[in-house]
Amino acid sequence: MKKSILAVAVGAALAMAGAANAEVSVYGKAHVSIDSLNDGDESFIYVSSNNSRIGFKASEDIDGGLKAGFFAEQTITMDGIGTTVFDRETYVSLGGGFGSFAVGKIDTPMKNLGRKIDFFGDQIGDARNLTAQSNSLEGIGFTVADYCAGLTTTTTPTLAACTASVKAKNVGYDARPGNMITYTTPDMGGIAATVAFMPEDGTKKGSGFDVAVNYTAGPLFVGAAYETHGKGMNASLASAGSDETESGMRLGASFGMGDLKVAGLFQSLKNIGGFKDFDTTVIGVGASFKLGAGAVKGQLYKADKYKDTSKTGATMIALGYDHSLSKNTQVYAAYAVTNNDDNAGYSMAGAGRSANPKVATDSSGNSESPSGLSFGMITKF
Amino acid sequence: MKKSILAVAVGAALAMAGAANAEVSVYGKAHVSIDSLNDGDESFIYVSSNNSRIGFKASEDIDGGLKAGFFAEQTITMDGIGTTVFDRETYVSLGGGFGSFAVGKIDTPMKNLGRKIDFFGDQIGDARNLTAQSNSLEGIGFTVADYCAGLTTTTTPTLAACTASVKAKNVGYDARPGNMITYTTPDMGGIAATVAFMPEDGTKKGSGFDVAVNYTAGPLFVGAAYETHGKGMNASLASAGSDETESGMRLGASFGMGDLKVAGLFQSLKNIGGFKDFDTTVIGVGASFKLGAGAVKGQLYKADKYKDTSKTGATMIALGYDHSLSKNTQVYAAYAVTNNDDNAGYSMAGAGRSANPKVATDSSGNSESPSGLSFGMITKF
Amino acid sequence: MKKSILAVAVGAALAMAGAANAEVSVYGKAHVSIDSLNDGDESFIYVSSNNSRIGFKASEDIDGGLKAGFFAEQTITMDGIGTTVFDRETYVSLGGGFGSFAVGKIDTPMKNLGRKIDFFGDQIGDARNLTAQSNSLEGIGFTVADYCAGLTTTTTPTLAACTASVKAKNVGYDARPGNMITYTTPDMGGIAATVAFMPEDGTKKGSGFDVAVNYTAGPLFVGAAYETHGKGMNASLASAGSDETESGMRLGASFGMGDLKVAGLFQSLKNIGGFKDFDTTVIGVGASFKLGAGAVKGQLYKADKYKDTSKTGATMIALGYDHSLSKNTQVYAAYAVTNNDDNAGYSMAGAGRSANPKVATDSSGNSESPSGLSFGMITKF
Repeated sequence: MKKSILAVAVGAALAMAGAANAEVSVYGKAHVSIDSLNDGDESFIYVSSNNSRIGFKASEDIDGGLKAGFFAEQTITMDGIGTTVFDRETYVSLGGGFGSFAVGKIDTPMKNLGRKIDFFGDQIGDARNLTAQSNSLEGIGFTVADYCAGLTTTTTPTLAACTASVKAKNVGYDARPGNMITYTTPDMGGIAATVAFMPEDGTKKGSGFDVAVNYTAGPLFVGAAYETHGKGMNASLASAGSDETESGMRLGASFGMGDLKVAGLFQSLKNIGGFKDFDTTVIGVGASFKLGAGAVKGQLYKADKYKDTSKTGATMIALGYDHSLSKNTQVYAAYAVTNNDDNAGYSMAGAGRSANPKVATDSSGNSESPSGLSFGMITKF
Repeated sequence: MKKSILAVAVGAALAMAGAANAEVSVYGKAHVSIDSLNDGDESFIYVSSNNSRIGFKASEDIDGGLKAGFFAEQTITMDGIGTTVFDRETYVSLGGGFGSFAVGKIDTPMKNLGRKIDFFGDQIGDARNLTAQSNSLEGIGFTVADYCAGLTTTTTPTLAACTASVKAKNVGYDARPGNMITYTTPDMGGIAATVAFMPEDGTKKGSGFDVAVNYTAGPLFVGAAYETHGKGMNASLASAGSDETESGMRLGASFGMGDLKVAGLFQSLKNIGGFKDFDTTVIGVGASFKLGAGAVKGQLYKADKYKDTSKTGATMIALGYDHSLSKNTQVYAAYAVTNNDDNAGYSMAGAGRSANPKVATDSSGNSESPSGLSFGMITKF
Repeated sequence: MKKSILAVAVGAALAMAGAANAEVSVYGKAHVSIDSLNDGDESFIYVSSNNSRIGFKASEDIDGGLKAGFFAEQTITMDGIGTTVFDRETYVSLGGGFGSFAVGKIDTPMKNLGRKIDFFGDQIGDARNLTAQSNSLEGIGFTVADYCAGLTTTTTPTLAACTASVKAKNVGYDARPGNMITYTTPDMGGIAATVAFMPEDGTKKGSGFDVAVNYTAGPLFVGAAYETHGKGMNASLASAGSDETESGMRLGASFGMGDLKVAGLFQSLKNIGGFKDFDTTVIGVGASFKLGAGAVKGQLYKADKYKDTSKTGATMIALGYDHSLSKNTQVYAAYAVTNNDDNAGYSMAGAGRSANPKVATDSSGNSESPSGLSFGMITKF
């Protein structure tokens, strides 16, 4: 994904030319799948582009051990539907023995922790279908009406306020906010931490904050992250009756034993949409086992119901086989299903993907359980 | 257009460095012209960017004779008007002795056949001004009102249904659909075929299909293509009264004799807009003759009236001179005129170009005949 | 900003490979700052991307001394807000002993003159906050209501016409029009001139024209530019009562004496918005002084009131310190304040930057005076 093929060329050529300039690299990843997706009612064939991207990066070594960097990454769609220019991570950085600062559009430390644990990133069954809880809720098939209909109280929040809140553009917890400032410590005996600050930029609605600490010791990885959203981070928080600061906590761990790797995640969110004590949790476990040039894998994620609601939880199961054709090119097959409670509406195909049918409902308006089978190819360059 | 200048650098540098990675190339074509265009009534000076583009491509040779590829191409405008990110061909491919599969946004085989025959691609007089018959109808100066006013029957389709149908976003027959799957055979004694499938992606409105067979033998080229559009390919097909599958057929051939090259095209379209028996045909002939570093060229395309309509045909004539300044840079002059029947409204400047005045009408509402003179430069990199 | 790092690689590799092709380069500049900005009432922390960009360029030497070129440049935002694809300078060129022609989206010669004089380009305090007088008036914090409320006459233009005019998309005088044609002379003993023509492209509203002459002699630079906007260049000129051609004149000069550099600008605009005798002038002076690897700098720009208005002028003062970490990477601190007359509404943070709070007004509706402190980093690649 971040290979510096042009930088190699540049470096080699510069060695000959005796020049001394910043290196620039073009890199990317193409990830496309052909899927049979069932919305809980009917199946169709889809083509999906799964966070395919191209990027440009440059860095310069400066006297005194400093390093200046630039990074700009762009989503590539395969369906004629456009995206924002340089919509993915795009930032400048300045690092040294003291650690590294970066400013721009950057994945949050809490998101990065989740990405380390997920065995199905950008495939069907991606953990974010349950963990993101963001403005992409509807994008990933979450039905606002279902979500809010699950409330057992009509007071806090009311159905109308709930609907308005969820529809608002929440930042969520697998986000890549713009205009963010981060500081990452150097590695300290296997421990490294990142702190992120999202200024309120004149909105008078409060800033955002995220901190994550990761520990690596041989085959063991353990991480913890905590994130808060002031009103400036979450348009819905301006609604009447929702004046709390959103917060989320994520714990993750993985361990390798020979060809086996296991991992788990726990997530707890508080005051979703700014509503006091409107909380939920998600847990997930997964494993992979190497088989020659390939690996079999599976994971299970479970989202609890929202506090004071009924039937708003879901369980997602994903099974897959990845096969490497080369160091840079991989093919895979994956199956995923999300069993929704009547008032949930989680997808299993939305996160990181373009093909994602809306979850069907039965004649009583209860959510069905979507499933899918996906055959994909990933090639890095 | 697809030259791999950076790949050369990368290859050379890698040879030195002993690395072994996918190659990535940046390539492109800038094509700009200064035109005097007459809408049939008045002339103005225009600057036009004619499908200028930049692209990125990468490929990797995999053990066992496989080859994985990535391709992403972007239109460049010169007028401050934006386009979708990677709006041109953008796909991944996997090939081998069995042929090649590609998935993404890809020119249809039928379009590619037409491109091989056109002597004025992306210049004024481009054959697609008459052949495309797509949602770009209005874009290329086609007046919906004129088109539908030409109907001699008020029953199938009615004027209102006709207008709605044409205004809808038809895929047309010089298209680059997203989320398409293609398979191209290896060369078999000069014969190669491509099959393309466009899934309905959950629209429940039918898929698209395209097949083309090309034969090359020395200076001779012959090709045939057939394409169908289910309702999912053509929003207008959902209209009441239009429940047929659109289909089109294209035959093309070219032959070279020393400095002379001649080519011809025949196209027959059925059930346009989904209306039963609402058909038309286009024929075209052209020739070029080399003169030193340049070539003179001309072509004539003729669109028949639509079946059961009156005065909806047109004839386009184009004359030009191309002059190569180098292997990569060319200048040219071109003249084109489209003689419209009273109820037609074809342009001669729309296809592949940014400058395209709307066709004028006289005081009786009858279409005028637009013409233009264009001086352009093309440079490939 | 325009360094050809990849071209170097390509050139070196080609020298080995014996090929002979156009060179292509990827280059860019990342410029991000963290600011404390006061809108005249309250202060907030902001992150700003200041015309960060990435570009692609290619050129080919052609027999006979000709040189064909291609250039496409793209803004990079760091805040998730998109821009047009290749929204910056994007053109093709053909040059030789006779000079150079370019066609596409190009900075006007008058803009380029202003850029040579500005000590705070893309930083807070950028001269264009006062000079641009364009459709970005509101973008840079100019309050239309304030501007028009300053009129002392209700006849030419009326308040309503004034508001409509200013809100219309004026081209302004620090512009980068699309579809422009330019010719630049070769250097003639230190003198070079550029003529630019912006065709009316069928709008029937008149074309634009710009000419600049620059003279360089050792440490001395002197330049003059004149620009006119026909109605086609300025949508507001079609308004009733505004039938004049806009025009502007700019004079600039700079002189270096050892570590000191001084520069000054004078600008006079006529018939703004197409209203006869609705004129204004801007003057500016600045200086910088080198201190080791850094430089201190300051500038003062003053915009007169609009003719026949009251209290529509402003004075902007900027102070800064730039420090080079390397040839390609610079950090800086800058302070700027704009003292607005009651009916003006000029910013000091708008031009070339993403973070720009709207200028506050007091309880009487009079404009406040915005100020800010900015810490930035620029890295070129």
